[in-house]
Amino acid sequence: MESRNRVLPLNFPALSRRSRALDPELTASPSTLTAHTSRVEKWLVHKLLEVMGNPPIRFVFWDGQEVASSAAAPTASVIVGDRPTLLRLLAQPSVHFGDAYSAGRLDVEGDLVKLMETVFAARPDPNRAGMWATLSRLLARRPRTNTLGGSRENIHHHYDLSNDFYRLWLDEQMVYTCAYYGAESMTLDEAQVAKMDHVCRKLELRPGDTVIEAGCGWGSLALHMAKHYGVTVRAFNISREQIAYARERAERVGLGNRVEYVESDYRNISGKCDAFVSVGMLEHVGKDNYTTLGEVVHRCLNRDGRALIHTIGRNRPQLMSAWIEKRIFPGAYPPTLREMMDIFEPWGFSVLDVENLRLHYARTLTHWLERYEQSIDRVREMFDERFVRAWRLYLSGAIAGFTTSTLQLFQVVLAHGTSNRVPWTRAHLYQRD
Amino acid sequence: MESRNRVLPLNFPALSRRSRALDPELTASPSTLTAHTSRVEKWLVHKLLEVMGNPPIRFVFWDGQEVASSAAAPTASVIVGDRPTLLRLLAQPSVHFGDAYSAGRLDVEGDLVKLMETVFAARPDPNRAGMWATLSRLLARRPRTNTLGGSRENIHHHYDLSNDFYRLWLDEQMVYTCAYYGAESMTLDEAQVAKMDHVCRKLELRPGDTVIEAGCGWGSLALHMAKHYGVTVRAFNISREQIAYARERAERVGLGNRVEYVESDYRNISGKCDAFVSVGMLEHVGKDNYTTLGEVVHRCLNRDGRALIHTIGRNRPQLMSAWIEKRIFPGAYPPTLREMMDIFEPWGFSVLDVENLRLHYARTLTHWLERYEQSIDRVREMFDERFVRAWRLYLSGAIAGFTTSTLQLFQVVLAHGTSNRVPWTRAHLYQRD
Repeated sequence: MESRNRVLPLNFPALSRRSRALDPELTASPSTLTAHTSRVEKWLVHKLLEVMGNPPIRFVFWDGQEVASSAAAPTASVIVGDRPTLLRLLAQPSVHFGDAYSAGRLDVEGDLVKLMETVFAARPDPNRAGMWATLSRLLARRPRTNTLGGSRENIHHHYDLSNDFYRLWLDEQMVYTCAYYGAESMTLDEAQVAKMDHVCRKLELRPGDTVIEAGCGWGSLALHMAKHYGVTVRAFNISREQIAYARERAERVGLGNRVEYVESDYRNISGKCDAFVSVGMLEHVGKDNYTTLGEVVHRCLNRDGRALIHTIGRNRPQLMSAWIEKRIFPGAYPPTLREMMDIFEPWGFSVLDVENLRLHYARTLTHWLERYEQSIDRVREMFDERFVRAWRLYLSGAIAGFTTSTLQLFQVVLAHGTSNRVPWTRAHLYQRD
Repeated sequence: MESRNRVLPLNFPALSRRSRALDPELTASPSTLTAHTSRVEKWLVHKLLEVMGNPPIRFVFWDGQEVASSAAAPTASVIVGDRPTLLRLLAQPSVHFGDAYSAGRLDVEGDLVKLMETVFAARPDPNRAGMWATLSRLLARRPRTNTLGGSRENIHHHYDLSNDFYRLWLDEQMVYTCAYYGAESMTLDEAQVAKMDHVCRKLELRPGDTVIEAGCGWGSLALHMAKHYGVTVRAFNISREQIAYARERAERVGLGNRVEYVESDYRNISGKCDAFVSVGMLEHVGKDNYTTLGEVVHRCLNRDGRALIHTIGRNRPQLMSAWIEKRIFPGAYPPTLREMMDIFEPWGFSVLDVENLRLHYARTLTHWLERYEQSIDRVREMFDERFVRAWRLYLSGAIAGFTTSTLQLFQVVLAHGTSNRVPWTRAHLYQRD
């Protein structure tokens, strides 16, 4: 028991000291911190487990006492370092699990991904579980608004952390969206190239086509299209760091005349194109703006053009985890297919093809997490331990989201309802070169 | 002008006499029938054309006078045989065009499919055209209800016409749904086999699997699955004639022990299966019953099973043409993808794949119409001229619906949200044997 009691101080002495020093509760009365877990506290943890659908996990408290769901042998243990952490966790588990884990006041014994998978997989069917549905709603957090100004701030929060940070663990082309492992043996680098090709084939790009890209990240897809499909691209992004990086790169590889990176919001896009593509931006658009995004596509896309939207999604409507929305992705919301229809239906678009690549995102994230852990010392130097742990939790939770199907990955291909220049079959996507 | 005046009597003397004899308006005062088209009548036809978005077509009246939209050279002409027909057409164009055409009191000079395409293509964007949207709503007809009894009656109306009739113009296997022309050169027979294979591959059928089919038509798909994929099938249908035909056929080809045809409604399906498939039934289910259909799939499908729904659909919600709903397909309603989510979302299904095969249905229908016209004398013997013309109009209108994209054809593949035994890619759909 003694050894458990010391898990946190042993692993994160600095953090542990710092957070105690910063927290009045923790300095006020040391005796309340070390006092044994009460019967009421343990009963409350049992209740929490019950509401969560009794996932086979174990809670271990600062005094070595334990609470486990009786369901099965625990797949992992949550170590709660002190009483205030427990009380906060009970009051607002969705936000505080992440915050306490990041601060090192809560730890996981066993595999973090496995723990998250266990929790996600146990979630009761919302049709049957009024309690859980209510709890989920209470724990979830309305995304911050995505007005023009709000979007800029939200995007800056995540994507402008530093290019050097992302370079540590993304593929060599810096593609920060789901890869496509067309062959199961592919490396991350290969799968990101395969994803870009999959997108280009779905768009049926032809040499000379003009392409508009909404939300272009560090610019890889635009360069790939220009280089391998002979098109010209105007790519939009509101992340200043990403745009600067992309422009520099386009010049370096001699594609500056064929790819233009524009630092502007998708709502400001004008002009016409043969293909409209958006990979991994919709998550940040916000439901209220879907009809506006559809209007942009409708306005820009030539009569016989093709469009593709690639996004994280859901099987049922559900707000983002409160912690993710608060600490990692402000303003983010993954839509259901039904919600996405607000983009297409008002404008009479024909949905031609929907593919769900959920398990490809789980593998992509697994590759990212491996590389992240390999660079962990460098990340700690760039930021601090709290950041290191927060991002570990985010990447692990995302893997679990995709493997347990609380998250989906949709690629939707569309065309104007009036166009008959649509692919006859999808065989061309699978032809070997 | 004289020649136009005689178009109807020349082509359909019997029909023309009969309808006049049956119609009090037409026997009451012969002089009103032959009186010249009035200025008001022509103005109303101009207004009708305007509301329709000015399709380049021409109206020719019984006295040889004409009204054409000024847009372009007319692609075809609508010959209106007498004043009562014109007045009814003006009052309720959507129903009465079909009825008057069937009765031979209205004819089309030029290609019927082309005429319908011209009209459908001209329809104004509902976002911009309040008038048209209002008119469409007024002209449309709420589908008849699909209670257990109502469904039986609605299905009997269409599918129990007579197996001999459908045998005249369907493929040799009697598949009455969209074919899949995997290679553009395929015949109708080949494309129906290719469609069945496409469906089986999407369902990833494995020898020994159990399959439930909801709405099995004349039983071809069930037989195809059993014969070529080594599965056992329970196939449901409420059309008595189709079930009798299917059972006889299963016995004849020695698959009676592997395929069971059940004369019952999809709502009565019980038991479990590895694959659930429904091709061309959803059009008859009715929006109000989608959640119930989803419940049936959810209840029957094994944990790692796959399901496929194949249906005519829409880009935007729109009721069936009043004439089609009244005369051809009572109770029918083609849904949008958003509406289809009522099947999937409440049960947490993962949508894995959506394919839109709209242009394949246009080709299928073109092949059906060709074969129908080749058997026209036989159809006339079995029914009468009114029936011959009604079905010509229905098949032609359906072709135009798919070529102008007022109709879509969706194949949706789904799995339980909790299953990870989902196809890794879709390449297996396109591998050559």
